[in-house]
Amino acid sequence: MTEYMVRPIGVVRSALKDPADAPKQGALTGQEAEIVVDPAYLPALEGLDPGRGKIIVMCWMHRADRDRLKVHPRGQEDRPERGVFSTRSPHRPNPISLHTVTLRSIEGNVLRVRGMDAIDGTPVVDIKSHSPELDG
Amino acid sequence: MTEYMVRPIGVVRSALKDPADAPKQGALTGQEAEIVVDPAYLPALEGLDPGRGKIIVMCWMHRADRDRLKVHPRGQEDRPERGVFSTRSPHRPNPISLHTVTLRSIEGNVLRVRGMDAIDGTPVVDIKSHSPELDG
Repeated sequence: MTEYMVRPIGVVRSALKDPADAPKQGALTGQEAEIVVDPAYLPALEGLDPGRGKIIVMCWMHRADRDRLKVHPRGQEDRPERGVFSTRSPHRPNPISLHTVTLRSIEGNVLRVRGMDAIDGTPVVDIKSHSPELDG
Repeated sequence: MTEYMVRPIGVVRSALKDPADAPKQGALTGQEAEIVVDPAYLPALEGLDPGRGKIIVMCWMHRADRDRLKVHPRGQEDRPERGVFSTRSPHRPNPISLHTVTLRSIEGNVLRVRGMDAIDGTPVVDIKSHSPELDG
């Protein structure tokens, strides 16, 4: 099948520096982070509004193992392995992560968000509006 | 920034053959479709269970315009243009779509799902478990 090239549109800036520090499903901890968007994509941010609810951020988990097809859920080795497509493990053939976060503020090309568990330096590949109807 | 290669893990089979036929946010219409997974990834499907609620399917919208940074929401030209990152338009720098669908059945490498608005032949790039807590 044809392959496609993902071009990061920004990067995560976070106090989480190491995968070992990142809480599993850390969205639930309310971790704050910044999404620094490449200024070339500034027009694509128009319409994003901290008053309009949550947004979806997709990242490329650049440290993931793309060859892993089975994992212990949440890294707990006492739990039986499962196929990665039945989990939220970062390890998967195309390591695209999905973060439903609260948009706190936008200043220029910097989005401040809450509920982001990606580590500092993670490439961001997409931002979308969140819809409770479509995504809940 | 470094670019990354996305390798499709499967393909959508659907009665929707043309983008013009695809309902906007067609998840809400209950459209049925099949996800045909490359047999190389069969182990990654273990643990997916139609009884366990919704799943997330990500596709690569191969017909999208990656250079469009602003769009009329839902293609309605009477509505003012907005940045693509504030919409769910297929047109965006990395055209990765997000579908929260109901898993109806699995037979071998074929997943039957409901609520899928991607057109026939759309490459599938990831499958994840859905979590109302994380994604809602």
